[in-house]
Amino acid sequence: MAIEKQKVAIIGSGNCAIAKIAGYNAARHSDSFERQVNMYVYQEKNLTDIINEEHTNKKYLPNVQLPENVVAISNVEEAARDATLLIFVLPHQFILNVCKSLKGNISPKAHAISMIKGVDVRDNKISIFADVIQEALGIPCAALSGANIANEAVARDKFSETTVGYRPNQRELALSYVKLFDTNNFRVGMIDDVAGVSLCGALKNVVAIGAGFCDGLGWGDNAKAAIMRIGLMEMKKFSLEFFQNVKPETFTETSAGFGGRNRKCAEAFVKTGKPFSVLEAELLNGQKLQGTETAREVYQYLSSRNRVDAYPLFRTIYKISFEGMPPAQLTSDL
Amino acid sequence: MAIEKQKVAIIGSGNCAIAKIAGYNAARHSDSFERQVNMYVYQEKNLTDIINEEHTNKKYLPNVQLPENVVAISNVEEAARDATLLIFVLPHQFILNVCKSLKGNISPKAHAISMIKGVDVRDNKISIFADVIQEALGIPCAALSGANIANEAVARDKFSETTVGYRPNQRELALSYVKLFDTNNFRVGMIDDVAGVSLCGALKNVVAIGAGFCDGLGWGDNAKAAIMRIGLMEMKKFSLEFFQNVKPETFTETSAGFGGRNRKCAEAFVKTGKPFSVLEAELLNGQKLQGTETAREVYQYLSSRNRVDAYPLFRTIYKISFEGMPPAQLTSDL
Repeated sequence: MAIEKQKVAIIGSGNCAIAKIAGYNAARHSDSFERQVNMYVYQEKNLTDIINEEHTNKKYLPNVQLPENVVAISNVEEAARDATLLIFVLPHQFILNVCKSLKGNISPKAHAISMIKGVDVRDNKISIFADVIQEALGIPCAALSGANIANEAVARDKFSETTVGYRPNQRELALSYVKLFDTNNFRVGMIDDVAGVSLCGALKNVVAIGAGFCDGLGWGDNAKAAIMRIGLMEMKKFSLEFFQNVKPETFTETSAGFGGRNRKCAEAFVKTGKPFSVLEAELLNGQKLQGTETAREVYQYLSSRNRVDAYPLFRTIYKISFEGMPPAQLTSDL
Repeated sequence: MAIEKQKVAIIGSGNCAIAKIAGYNAARHSDSFERQVNMYVYQEKNLTDIINEEHTNKKYLPNVQLPENVVAISNVEEAARDATLLIFVLPHQFILNVCKSLKGNISPKAHAISMIKGVDVRDNKISIFADVIQEALGIPCAALSGANIANEAVARDKFSETTVGYRPNQRELALSYVKLFDTNNFRVGMIDDVAGVSLCGALKNVVAIGAGFCDGLGWGDNAKAAIMRIGLMEMKKFSLEFFQNVKPETFTETSAGFGGRNRKCAEAFVKTGKPFSVLEAELLNGQKLQGTETAREVYQYLSSRNRVDAYPLFRTIYKISFEGMPPAQLTSDL
């Protein structure tokens, strides 16, 4: 079955690297995609005008030039109206409202891919955002793990990898996501495991905090490798325990990527002794660090299930991050 | 079936950390081990006297105090005569001669564990050293991956992990190896896969060279994570292709540990532009770097099988290390 030409809309403007890649690939794969890529941009002052005239988003990646075929639109329904391929890169607190606006106003052929970070923990339940979107819009929703690492490929021209997790029987759609995102430096794989890919993307940020503690303590490569291996085992165990149809190999064979600012901030946490809230203000321009946020949500969820003690590394990372446990006790309970 | 009290002999003096750990555990687990641990030391000047009087090996870990129950013996047959548990930590070029001396002179209850680094490539054949020893002595031989990382636990009091790979039906022996090596900072796991553990231990050094190239290039955490993931997949593929009865989970669930001096020397290779032979002289006191040696052996073996192109990362690491390929091409062929 051939896929019809896709019309792409990016819902959210927080990830310029993905916008750049999608614009670039939509233009060069003209057999598969419409040239114009819409990007819904929450209107602050005249941000859409600036993006459409200067082709750059000063708020996020100010040095990245966006392709001119990426067009900013401040009305989400208008941005999505004719699109068949919706990319969700919103901060998670806006998802439900945006989906409410979109419901009934999208193409019957529309399908989506979520790049939303973290997990949704509410009322002692845990969900991935791809499921939240799929349910809210009634369309298939896949997931891309680690969209933030696209920044390394785009802004700094560095090699990185990520994975599309897709629904069973949606392989054709997955191939079109891979085609839309894969570049020479940003390698995109795929596996039919939406939950596994989403959870890998969220939980690896927790483990990266542990790896950063290791670095801050000056414990060396072998200790860090041990933390990452134990972390990967807890990630897999957690996902298999609390989600259906997760594939174990998603955690051991696809690209996980423990790195970036979670690790760096955790290193600074140990070295400076400053709380994460201060480091977020100083190092991240006030943005929340994903790894510690997810560590807190996972800890709360496990507490509600009486399962905290089955995940000693997750527990320790939470307690060091938020309850004053000394970082040097990182491996004491493992 | 209860295991009788084991008498331990360490064949080789190059790993003081393992000697320290074995001495310490033999003394505290007096239900399982004879107190005295013999250590065969190749006699240079009066090295055995120095070790037995000062309880330190100035040649290797000069700051490590050996337990006084570790007794250096310069005659290998004498060191091994009454032993039931033989630990092989020799440089690989001495194994066959030492086994020749031991053959017929060891206890009928003797069994062995190999900590010898690398793989044995000869006449277009590849073997692990645990098989070489098992065949030469006619006794079961297990393997410990990454004995060198014991140095971090002992000399610098840092957390690290390793794995015992044991033969099918030799679980009781494996438990005694774990008991002999496991400490609070040096965690020892086990799996019934001698070949997998040995190959993991050898090939991870090759991948660590690639990780070090990444660091030297300043490519960041995500690129390094990608190299390690791709490397792990090539390690697993190689082992399953060329060895019998390897368990895939050995590569994804047991402790691998990509680090240490292989990574650091590879970083220096990129940053200084000096060849590995010079770096070995400058940074390793003339010792050979395991990762590049294994990279060369693996490349030669794959060449003899016409399978080089099936392992693009192994090929690239070899070519950067020895054939002048620019490090920045690390990911070009992946």
